[in-house]
Amino acid sequence: KRTNAKNMTRKLNISGIYPPIATPFTEREEVDYQKLDENLQKYSKLPFKGLVVQGSNGEYPYLTVNERLEVVKRVRDILPNSKLLIAGSGCESTKATVQMTGGMAHAGADAVLVVTPCFYRGRMNSKALIHHYTKVADASPVPVVLYSVPANTGLELPVDAIVCLSQHPNIVGLKDSGGDITRIGLIIHKTRLEDFQVLAGSAGFLMAAYAVGAVGGVCALANVLGEEVCELERLCMLGDWEKARELQHRLIEPNTAVTRKYGVAALKQAMEWFGFHGGATRSPLQPLSQTELQQLHVDFSSNGWL
Amino acid sequence: KRTNAKNMTRKLNISGIYPPIATPFTEREEVDYQKLDENLQKYSKLPFKGLVVQGSNGEYPYLTVNERLEVVKRVRDILPNSKLLIAGSGCESTKATVQMTGGMAHAGADAVLVVTPCFYRGRMNSKALIHHYTKVADASPVPVVLYSVPANTGLELPVDAIVCLSQHPNIVGLKDSGGDITRIGLIIHKTRLEDFQVLAGSAGFLMAAYAVGAVGGVCALANVLGEEVCELERLCMLGDWEKARELQHRLIEPNTAVTRKYGVAALKQAMEWFGFHGGATRSPLQPLSQTELQQLHVDFSSNGWL
Amino acid sequence: KRTNAKNMTRKLNISGIYPPIATPFTEREEVDYQKLDENLQKYSKLPFKGLVVQGSNGEYPYLTVNERLEVVKRVRDILPNSKLLIAGSGCESTKATVQMTGGMAHAGADAVLVVTPCFYRGRMNSKALIHHYTKVADASPVPVVLYSVPANTGLELPVDAIVCLSQHPNIVGLKDSGGDITRIGLIIHKTRLEDFQVLAGSAGFLMAAYAVGAVGGVCALANVLGEEVCELERLCMLGDWEKARELQHRLIEPNTAVTRKYGVAALKQAMEWFGFHGGATRSPLQPLSQTELQQLHVDFSSNGWL
Amino acid sequence: KRTNAKNMTRKLNISGIYPPIATPFTEREEVDYQKLDENLQKYSKLPFKGLVVQGSNGEYPYLTVNERLEVVKRVRDILPNSKLLIAGSGCESTKATVQMTGGMAHAGADAVLVVTPCFYRGRMNSKALIHHYTKVADASPVPVVLYSVPANTGLELPVDAIVCLSQHPNIVGLKDSGGDITRIGLIIHKTRLEDFQVLAGSAGFLMAAYAVGAVGGVCALANVLGEEVCELERLCMLGDWEKARELQHRLIEPNTAVTRKYGVAALKQAMEWFGFHGGATRSPLQPLSQTELQQLHVDFSSNGWL
Repeated sequence: KRTNAKNMTRKLNISGIYPPIATPFTEREEVDYQKLDENLQKYSKLPFKGLVVQGSNGEYPYLTVNERLEVVKRVRDILPNSKLLIAGSGCESTKATVQMTGGMAHAGADAVLVVTPCFYRGRMNSKALIHHYTKVADASPVPVVLYSVPANTGLELPVDAIVCLSQHPNIVGLKDSGGDITRIGLIIHKTRLEDFQVLAGSAGFLMAAYAVGAVGGVCALANVLGEEVCELERLCMLGDWEKARELQHRLIEPNTAVTRKYGVAALKQAMEWFGFHGGATRSPLQPLSQTELQQLHVDFSSNGWL
Repeated sequence: KRTNAKNMTRKLNISGIYPPIATPFTEREEVDYQKLDENLQKYSKLPFKGLVVQGSNGEYPYLTVNERLEVVKRVRDILPNSKLLIAGSGCESTKATVQMTGGMAHAGADAVLVVTPCFYRGRMNSKALIHHYTKVADASPVPVVLYSVPANTGLELPVDAIVCLSQHPNIVGLKDSGGDITRIGLIIHKTRLEDFQVLAGSAGFLMAAYAVGAVGGVCALANVLGEEVCELERLCMLGDWEKARELQHRLIEPNTAVTRKYGVAALKQAMEWFGFHGGATRSPLQPLSQTELQQLHVDFSSNGWL
Repeated sequence: KRTNAKNMTRKLNISGIYPPIATPFTEREEVDYQKLDENLQKYSKLPFKGLVVQGSNGEYPYLTVNERLEVVKRVRDILPNSKLLIAGSGCESTKATVQMTGGMAHAGADAVLVVTPCFYRGRMNSKALIHHYTKVADASPVPVVLYSVPANTGLELPVDAIVCLSQHPNIVGLKDSGGDITRIGLIIHKTRLEDFQVLAGSAGFLMAAYAVGAVGGVCALANVLGEEVCELERLCMLGDWEKARELQHRLIEPNTAVTRKYGVAALKQAMEWFGFHGGATRSPLQPLSQTELQQLHVDFSSNGWL
Repeated sequence: KRTNAKNMTRKLNISGIYPPIATPFTEREEVDYQKLDENLQKYSKLPFKGLVVQGSNGEYPYLTVNERLEVVKRVRDILPNSKLLIAGSGCESTKATVQMTGGMAHAGADAVLVVTPCFYRGRMNSKALIHHYTKVADASPVPVVLYSVPANTGLELPVDAIVCLSQHPNIVGLKDSGGDITRIGLIIHKTRLEDFQVLAGSAGFLMAAYAVGAVGGVCALANVLGEEVCELERLCMLGDWEKARELQHRLIEPNTAVTRKYGVAALKQAMEWFGFHGGATRSPLQPLSQTELQQLHVDFSSNGWL
């Protein structure tokens, strides 16, 4: 049993499934708050632990500072209080991240998700990253979740930095989107004496992550197949590995299609197929080509989802 | 339940744990058959399904054609018939691989493990690799196991090639050492209608691989902690995930130390600590530095193994 | 002789040497305009073609929108009108880049340097990048220079996209920091019918770039050894390859030290050694360690610069 | 002027242009000595400094030990004594490389080209590689040329190892196929006190390499456009950079096509178009697809060669 001897109070429990919600845009590339609201109404009825707003799938690097805050406020207004709102507040500089983190808390976030700064990735070693996250966590009014997403940042938050940061009283966990299950197991092992929670950053390795000790997932695919991802969680929690495996297997191709393979435009297209509003992407992200669209459909239909 | 409608007979069952054995050398870098024999005596008493001879840890690229065959003969002489002998027979050219495969079967191998050719990796696409493996499997007197080990080859055997090759009656499975658990799950999913068996290529992700449907592992660490790796297998088969997870966690750092981090020299050193003969490596592989040696010791001792 | 049949007027001539200036910060990490001014006074006396403001070495991802514009205004105030001011105006979204480009022109930039957006690098294919740059160039009041810097962005602007974009009347050239000299030669070859100018993005391959047809360089090292980089330009223009080679050779290690090896903190430190104000970096960039500092010194002194 | 104070005698002069010859195979994938002979007759009339036998384009990893030696003997029989024969003798183990090196010298090689061993690339650090090359050079009856070809080996011979090895009396130079011109300049700079000669490993950056101080090239494209590559050498030696640049530019796309883009099969196809015998590749290398073949043709024709 994990305990955190250093802190009197338990850290915020973030276990469970979260869709990292997409930001629907109008054809003129403005945030479409109407469509966002309707998606939120639907997500509120699913057994999610909460929502991640402005993970990589939220096109947050394409939003202005004001838009980032406004979208979070809107989500908080609609999301039931029983659901957690984790807001992405990462920026390149420590200063901007501290400020955005404060803004997100003020806008109603229960916790913030802080991506690794990455532009000067050659110098983003453990020392720099520990310094960055410590400053942010010290200043943050709400708990901080670390976020490692090498496909976008070209950078993995090093294990030794994570182990060090896990001891910070205001750092509650990690979203790891890299998918290296050996690394995920090692992180869980080496932070076992802290109250530190690891979330799988993708539905593609969700079951394996549960097997090695993760407590939840932030899964793009949950925007589309939310019930099913939550069902996979339930099977893993129950220990019904036969059924879990079968379900996991059918989710891999659709998940890859809406993430690594075709990205946000595919996620938004698939949302339309399943009754949600995806809307347009913001430029320079482009719509899928006809060939990609057909292949995306096959990735869902060949696994029995369409 | 998996069935193979195309073939009347079941393929060879390769499920279980295998150490990919090291090749001990004398100080003059000759194969030390005496030490090899003594290791084999000890391995024969462990609950392995069999041995892999001339996987990457066997320094096979450093052996001559004759040495490769001679080592396999020696292993067959000593290994009980109840244990499977899987011999690495991969070479760069198809022609040489076919010939080596025949030689290995003649020397007593029950199956062969065929690594992806990789020197012209820019041209080793699915078409070339399907052609290569089909020729080898057509000609091989014994079943063929595919082998993908990107850390050494800089090349992953593509999923579509694996799916195609899984239908060959003489190809029984895959050793995947890449450790991408999403990929492993997908391979198992897409070959579910064939009698195709996937082995984890490392102890670092063995539990996760079982979770998504692998049937065994070829684990360098089993040369050192053979009982423990087999115990992990047993716990996974039983579905005792709590205990499995705890054991898996303690194996990650030692495993990484003897593979990716410090390589064969570390594996051989650790074997010495645990009562086996590692012996020298063949040049250009070098012994560990003092610093590396100390860190290697920590990677075992901090996890309670030394 | 290159001609651009499509356009009546010649494009802006950007040939020559530019330092991509550093942004000095105070110890409290505020922009130190006083130090910036003093640097600019010194740079004004060197035979640069102009200055690049907010290239990668300017820590632009760490500046707010207002700071980015304010720094450019300040530079324009001090820089003689005879010198070109090229301002970095790249942002992740097309919309923000268009806006920042307008702002930079208004602040006094003669041209803008637009880095490839990169967060969704898996989808930043030629189609997306051509779309992005076309929108930006269409809207820009001043000429646009493309900017490919894979060490920071993890992305190379594809050759086919460059060839296509070279035909745009408001796109005048490319800063290529990747250093692949075969690629640079090919780009120059394939844009030979356009009035398209290629600048080397680093002093490490400046001579080689001139050899294959580049017309200048944006070189971090010119912040430190400005005279010497301009002398290398002069020798290359004269065709005095023996002397050019000798000078080029002595610049490689110092250049690598202040770029790829130790980054902006090293550049700023070296500036202090050579009579300029580097100042602090903004966090998360950290100061050099003692060991790094010593090695940085060696990289200059062993080549006769200190 | 470079001098080597440590050694009384000058090292073998290897400056000049070499085609790394292809090995023609029959349709049954046997070495086609007849076709080889005819190619050699033609190459003997071109202004090459000599030939490289069993560089990467010679498919040497697909040849048996006997074939490797036999091919070299055959070349020596036909090649005029005035031309240098540099034979590839690299193997994975130091032991095998020493033996092959002796064999190559016996077969008539004037020098040997020794590729970096690479299977255990994670452990092929400077220490291991210095050990390897020192042993080989100590034992070799003929001068040794280092060979770094990361596209095939996934490994770059580190600069510090090269600088150290340049002092060995039996190591005369380096073939660098990586194409990083900054690195090539640095190597030449740091070995300037030794009698150490650097050859460009590809025609794509031949002119740039001459600019920074290389003394020749081993260029796959010279199998096809031998006259033209030698003409580029001549222009570089003369210092006629305008003409050199124009010729260099026209060689980039054909060169990339027969190397990185389509590999040995393309080289062999292009040889057929230009009056040489390419013959088949050995499996697993496959012939080009129709689409590739057409694109290959365009890469030559659009530059005026077909």
